[in-house]
Amino acid sequence: MNLPEIARQLELEHLYTDYAACLDSDALEHWPEFFVENCVYRITTAENYEADRPLGLIYATSRNMLKDRVSALRQANIYEPQRYRHMISGVRIQRDDVDALEVAANFLVVRTMQDGAMTLFAAGRYLDRVVRGVAGWHFARKIVVLDSRQIDTLLAIPL
Amino acid sequence: MNLPEIARQLELEHLYTDYAACLDSDALEHWPEFFVENCVYRITTAENYEADRPLGLIYATSRNMLKDRVSALRQANIYEPQRYRHMISGVRIQRDDVDALEVAANFLVVRTMQDGAMTLFAAGRYLDRVVRGVAGWHFARKIVVLDSRQIDTLLAIPL
Amino acid sequence: MNLPEIARQLELEHLYTDYAACLDSDALEHWPEFFVENCVYRITTAENYEADRPLGLIYATSRNMLKDRVSALRQANIYEPQRYRHMISGVRIQRDDVDALEVAANFLVVRTMQDGAMTLFAAGRYLDRVVRGVAGWHFARKIVVLDSRQIDTLLAIPL
Repeated sequence: MNLPEIARQLELEHLYTDYAACLDSDALEHWPEFFVENCVYRITTAENYEADRPLGLIYATSRNMLKDRVSALRQANIYEPQRYRHMISGVRIQRDDVDALEVAANFLVVRTMQDGAMTLFAAGRYLDRVVRGVAGWHFARKIVVLDSRQIDTLLAIPL
Repeated sequence: MNLPEIARQLELEHLYTDYAACLDSDALEHWPEFFVENCVYRITTAENYEADRPLGLIYATSRNMLKDRVSALRQANIYEPQRYRHMISGVRIQRDDVDALEVAANFLVVRTMQDGAMTLFAAGRYLDRVVRGVAGWHFARKIVVLDSRQIDTLLAIPL
Repeated sequence: MNLPEIARQLELEHLYTDYAACLDSDALEHWPEFFVENCVYRITTAENYEADRPLGLIYATSRNMLKDRVSALRQANIYEPQRYRHMISGVRIQRDDVDALEVAANFLVVRTMQDGAMTLFAAGRYLDRVVRGVAGWHFARKIVVLDSRQIDTLLAIPL
């Protein structure tokens, strides 16, 4: 690897670190800022993804839809407080399309309930497309592929 | 990122890797060596941290207090053998104060009991201040912010 | 760290990322390709490793034995479909022997059953020896040291 490749790898790792920190600190209002305006965001299961079924638990095709999602979550917040902790590893460029990069990463999310009970909330793989603009790297597409068939929540939160 | 920034990022990641390896191999006698002499070490909960309550499960203000802690743990070792495994991700410089860096990272600790039972022991965030000396990077301050309200142990171990 | 050291560190991290992706995508037929022909691959427990007991849950001394292992697993696949997710962190060169590197890393494997139940499947440490050939880095030796005494599976799968 040469210096530009190394710098790019670390910048991408920082993108995922900042993304995780945003979600874990419940700063959901800032979550759409990680995406370009005409983004695709999708949460699906590995089963559906492999069978090429298009829909998912969440399917959004613009940053505005992500903002709407956050508003809906804020209004529907009828649950007990809980905390999420994202562990992201293995950030890896899969393909370089010059104007964009296909990037994959593994994630594991641990949920801590108010009584202290900790559970494995979600595990899976990010299959993303990222672009570099003047303000740094953003997601043009993020597909969250869950290892499980479902997630234990009534209203799917961003992952 | 330029070369010095990249080198610094990787050196910091190594600091956390070595720190985790020290704890996971139960080499607690070496644990204080990761800190400067006038360090602050604190384990607290997210709830207490956000409410700005000063105290915590552990609060030490010098490397000697950390050494005392290790001695106490060794003498009180009345529990069945268990193993801890730290997964640390998202090491990220939050602020550069020239003489020191504010660094954050996510951690997840898995505990394995002697009968093989594995549990999520702790998850949370390190909010640290690190300084570079002739012998490399050390913690001037380490705040361990637990996602949970408590940890499942009678005598808090280093995290 | 200088540029060649940085490049080497990131190349090693990519080796572990690709290794995890191979196992997690159930591409077991490609798993032996991560090893040199005269490799050693061993899964053992921390207890056995520390007591210097040579055997383990798996012990192979060539790439062909790894291929045989995969064939056996494919024929014996009598279990319900499940997914594994490897989180690998703390990749760290322990010693540089010029012709090879001793490398350690932490791993955590989460298993998701078809009904969505997620469990901590394995945690531990890789103690590896890697060599660089014309086709990149390969494992000359991989010792998988489990924190637990056993793993919850009848026929040990690659880790």
